[in-house]
Amino acid sequence: MQQADGTKLFFASDYQEGAHPAILRRLVETNLEKTAGYGFDPYTESARAKIREACQSPEAEVFLLVGGTQTNATVIDALLCPWQGAVAAETGHIAVHEAGAIELGGHKVLTVPQTEGKMTAEALEKAFSGYWADENREHMVMPGLVYLSQPTEYGTLYSLKELEGIRALCDRYDAALYVDGARLAYALAASENDVTLADLGRLCDAFYIGGTKCGALFGEAVVFPGRRKAPHFFTVVKQHGALLAKGRIAGIQFDTLFTDGLYEAAGRNAVEAANRIRAALRERGIPLALETPTNQIFVSLDDDQLRRLSDRVAMDYWERTPEGRTVMRIATSWATAEEDVDRLIACL
Amino acid sequence: MQQADGTKLFFASDYQEGAHPAILRRLVETNLEKTAGYGFDPYTESARAKIREACQSPEAEVFLLVGGTQTNATVIDALLCPWQGAVAAETGHIAVHEAGAIELGGHKVLTVPQTEGKMTAEALEKAFSGYWADENREHMVMPGLVYLSQPTEYGTLYSLKELEGIRALCDRYDAALYVDGARLAYALAASENDVTLADLGRLCDAFYIGGTKCGALFGEAVVFPGRRKAPHFFTVVKQHGALLAKGRIAGIQFDTLFTDGLYEAAGRNAVEAANRIRAALRERGIPLALETPTNQIFVSLDDDQLRRLSDRVAMDYWERTPEGRTVMRIATSWATAEEDVDRLIACL
Amino acid sequence: MQQADGTKLFFASDYQEGAHPAILRRLVETNLEKTAGYGFDPYTESARAKIREACQSPEAEVFLLVGGTQTNATVIDALLCPWQGAVAAETGHIAVHEAGAIELGGHKVLTVPQTEGKMTAEALEKAFSGYWADENREHMVMPGLVYLSQPTEYGTLYSLKELEGIRALCDRYDAALYVDGARLAYALAASENDVTLADLGRLCDAFYIGGTKCGALFGEAVVFPGRRKAPHFFTVVKQHGALLAKGRIAGIQFDTLFTDGLYEAAGRNAVEAANRIRAALRERGIPLALETPTNQIFVSLDDDQLRRLSDRVAMDYWERTPEGRTVMRIATSWATAEEDVDRLIACL
Amino acid sequence: MQQADGTKLFFASDYQEGAHPAILRRLVETNLEKTAGYGFDPYTESARAKIREACQSPEAEVFLLVGGTQTNATVIDALLCPWQGAVAAETGHIAVHEAGAIELGGHKVLTVPQTEGKMTAEALEKAFSGYWADENREHMVMPGLVYLSQPTEYGTLYSLKELEGIRALCDRYDAALYVDGARLAYALAASENDVTLADLGRLCDAFYIGGTKCGALFGEAVVFPGRRKAPHFFTVVKQHGALLAKGRIAGIQFDTLFTDGLYEAAGRNAVEAANRIRAALRERGIPLALETPTNQIFVSLDDDQLRRLSDRVAMDYWERTPEGRTVMRIATSWATAEEDVDRLIACL
Repeated sequence: MQQADGTKLFFASDYQEGAHPAILRRLVETNLEKTAGYGFDPYTESARAKIREACQSPEAEVFLLVGGTQTNATVIDALLCPWQGAVAAETGHIAVHEAGAIELGGHKVLTVPQTEGKMTAEALEKAFSGYWADENREHMVMPGLVYLSQPTEYGTLYSLKELEGIRALCDRYDAALYVDGARLAYALAASENDVTLADLGRLCDAFYIGGTKCGALFGEAVVFPGRRKAPHFFTVVKQHGALLAKGRIAGIQFDTLFTDGLYEAAGRNAVEAANRIRAALRERGIPLALETPTNQIFVSLDDDQLRRLSDRVAMDYWERTPEGRTVMRIATSWATAEEDVDRLIACL
Repeated sequence: MQQADGTKLFFASDYQEGAHPAILRRLVETNLEKTAGYGFDPYTESARAKIREACQSPEAEVFLLVGGTQTNATVIDALLCPWQGAVAAETGHIAVHEAGAIELGGHKVLTVPQTEGKMTAEALEKAFSGYWADENREHMVMPGLVYLSQPTEYGTLYSLKELEGIRALCDRYDAALYVDGARLAYALAASENDVTLADLGRLCDAFYIGGTKCGALFGEAVVFPGRRKAPHFFTVVKQHGALLAKGRIAGIQFDTLFTDGLYEAAGRNAVEAANRIRAALRERGIPLALETPTNQIFVSLDDDQLRRLSDRVAMDYWERTPEGRTVMRIATSWATAEEDVDRLIACL
Repeated sequence: MQQADGTKLFFASDYQEGAHPAILRRLVETNLEKTAGYGFDPYTESARAKIREACQSPEAEVFLLVGGTQTNATVIDALLCPWQGAVAAETGHIAVHEAGAIELGGHKVLTVPQTEGKMTAEALEKAFSGYWADENREHMVMPGLVYLSQPTEYGTLYSLKELEGIRALCDRYDAALYVDGARLAYALAASENDVTLADLGRLCDAFYIGGTKCGALFGEAVVFPGRRKAPHFFTVVKQHGALLAKGRIAGIQFDTLFTDGLYEAAGRNAVEAANRIRAALRERGIPLALETPTNQIFVSLDDDQLRRLSDRVAMDYWERTPEGRTVMRIATSWATAEEDVDRLIACL
Repeated sequence: MQQADGTKLFFASDYQEGAHPAILRRLVETNLEKTAGYGFDPYTESARAKIREACQSPEAEVFLLVGGTQTNATVIDALLCPWQGAVAAETGHIAVHEAGAIELGGHKVLTVPQTEGKMTAEALEKAFSGYWADENREHMVMPGLVYLSQPTEYGTLYSLKELEGIRALCDRYDAALYVDGARLAYALAASENDVTLADLGRLCDAFYIGGTKCGALFGEAVVFPGRRKAPHFFTVVKQHGALLAKGRIAGIQFDTLFTDGLYEAAGRNAVEAANRIRAALRERGIPLALETPTNQIFVSLDDDQLRRLSDRVAMDYWERTPEGRTVMRIATSWATAEEDVDRLIACL
């Protein structure tokens, strides 16, 4: 929770600035126009159309919500039956860092083991087949949905093949697949990524395209490509306190992000900056705690390195290793300036 | 749900524009500064300080949330015990127009009769004393909080004396008083109003100062003046999906609204415009369905008047009377331009 | 909350004794048999078969739960979608006397006016058509189910024609019809009653046959005749804490009640006793507050009568009238002895 | 889910019979007495007094509920604040086998690793200290209560020293300690057990004394010894659908179980039978999957043994081991007859 005071470089998170200047420009230009509320405005309609096209999902229903926890709680509640739970990695955001928002809606989060933030097909298969083979399963919570985030909490990526495997598993067990894309721009821009928006449109029952961490003031675009309906989702959104009166504020933001490749550019800026930092770390022999291809870098520091670097760079504390090193997270974003990367590298 | 198409005047709601230009200006100026998230930034801190001062509540805890339904659900859940319900007018927003958001949190809305949107002290007294005198009350939902909005759904106002009476009732029955100020700027600016922010700070357990309908892009400032604590409210906010990652976006807005009297000015613009329209209606003999001192005008039209006016002015449908007239709502706002009022009056 | 002390006659409620002796006899006879749990025992299966036959609903699914509030909360949660609420009379049990159990499950109770505990078709029509005609209905709770009890809280009865009218309304609005039969035996035995179990099987989406107040130690038999499925209801029952480990204890009770006309006989005993008391009251010119054909008698007493009768008879306080009289409820049951009725009449 | 058909011995569960004959006798004797409902009867009062004495907790509040899942959901909801969760072993009943009943009440179950069904002090310490040391803890669910069962799901026991250690941990972290005693009689009767009812009264914020599996038709006695209050618990019970109208039916059962040492005797019968079976298994060299001192025996069988034994004895399937053996649960109870144990041993 550090503030910019002019003395430190800031790499603590990817939500420390405002919005891409193009977004603010559009907000200013359209400010005194009068439109209908609750997403029934032309900007939201335009954003919807562009998102449908980007996902190659012409039938998709698109809704613009405000934040990630809210979106997860609302979509999961809309896709699950009351007797079902959501399956997530034990490190998944809904399992650990959402203050019980899913449970407030009455649903259990069923956790499975993970490696580098990812669930394997085997772990998922075990969770589902274990439930369905158990003769006492009617006393248990039915796994009704697979939740994963792309990239994961650890900045790693599911490959297209892995995602197709999870889709096949969902089909076998009649479960929904829901992908949390809070940082989706940074997945899309990673060189090792092979999962496109169109793939998500083809494979998911629902996913969201993150705005808050990818260049917007706030906002997450929920896409239901058409496999499953979320009936009366507008009302469910309202019931969850997630309906914006001035829906156009989100509409204008996503309309801008999906114009002239801004969303892709936002992702690229962050990943290129992260790649430069990773290269510099490797060069200096400072180990990474985890190899990640996206905008989050998990660097493993000894106490001396930690002290010196922390003096000059705001990073996010991640964990202490058994070997007595400290893992810090360095996050880049759509807003990371090249000069700041230069300066960070100089500090290493 | 009408759009501006250049052919019609727009008086359908008070959330049809963006934000006060001063707010956008500040967002642009601060855009690339780096700050901590979740409300731990200097703009939010400054907004909190200014709101505490405006409410003359130096000990108040202030939180900035996104929208009205969300704020009501979160605050009510935070103030009530699990076995308690919220008492509201049968026309209250939480009783009718929040899609069951309060019930999603497990609480019943206990309704009492209303007149022009307001609950009388007698009706409230009856609800509370009825519960406490009932020997089967432990089978019932305990009234634990009085919810009212200032102004009400019908644009009417509670007087200071009425509010003090309700506070006394809450004290007698150990209940919380919570005031929904979605349109509070328009109450504060009404000439007949005698309830100040300081009065709310003195009388309420919690209230919120509406931003969304009073000049902000979005945002509601919740104030707990100090009578009751809402422990771990930050977590409760997160659990309700109401926590903004970039808290400063709300902080900058409220900081601006509470600088140089902008919030008061926003209210005044709307009320002065509404007063001019009301005067013109009276002059032309077009009856009001309800006498209101704030920014909402409820005009009663015959079919001919309705047809002619609707052709040129976007209004909000309210209800059909038994006498065959139609009540339409004309809403002014912080953004209503004098020329538009002139044009509307010319249409009458 | 009065105890039997040998000095007073007891007419305070219809759940003040244990169970019909035939039930206890069967419990004793079968006590040490070993059976599977959770309702997978032969007694529960037999009870199900008999109930299906009595309701002429060969396809019905039947579940045995423990108590009324629990049954209402579980069935309503199973039949409603998350964005829907239950419509009930403003005096309905779920609206007033269930401590918020329906809201705990996330559903709003939408109330309509009543007369003598009954909702008119007009009041229901107004609630449903009002919702569906409202252009802002997606901001509101959708009425998804009509809840009524037979007999009502006031001991009155819906006629077959009234029930058919409500069924037609439910069909028009795609809503479920759910009948709470906590005291159903006393409705079935009333001479003015024309609604049979087969009619309930034909008209309802779900109803329950009350055991607790009609001769059992506890237990309510939920019947889903087949119009709507309640998928995974077993799990929903468990989730609501309503699953009996030793399901057979409920099974044996309903098997016994539905053997040799015991349920009908239980009802008849209560209604005949009540009819004798009503006749004696009329004879003595003591007014009834309400004409009821079932096992509950609402007698209106002046202070003198109240004092004298209360000394000798335990009754249930109902309300104080504006005219200064007191309405007391006298309840008979399956267990009411003829001699006690004689003695009560002698006291009048 | 096997039925008794006269051809098989029955050791599948401890809830396959009715109730201890003394209980049925008392139900028959008192059957036509008239008492107040909802637990305000003299039998419930007497049961409460005897339980207070047995627990040496003269100030305890005692409530009689119906079943285990219901009791867990209700007590946990009563003891937790909305932002808190319950910590349980990953094999704990509330974590796996209650169909999401805790989550329906809005609370997360936070799991910790276990050994033989038990949580170590270290695992608990790690869960609590991990939360309190995490600077992002306000985004997470606060651990507010430790849930454990005595005996555990695996029939093992916490020692007094272990329980005192957990109490000390709860004190350090201001958490409640709640013990699920569904099979408490079988813990109390185990020779290795050193935790008495008085110890539970001294150490717990709440615990329940199981009736359903320990000789009653149904019923669980919740004890709040006095460390923490559960305000308006009567209403919370009603809200959870857990309130018995004829409360005395539970009262008579617990009054009987706590008269003349019946509860202890019920436990002893089961444990002695189990001990004889365990001795016979050891003698024959049939391995136990787990050493347990209570009424549940987990026997590890090869395919041939499984086939032969299953032909003659109803057991409960537990799991398949990686080595290709099958673990079956043999459960004894208060009702297990000596001859049946003889016959089972003869089958081995």
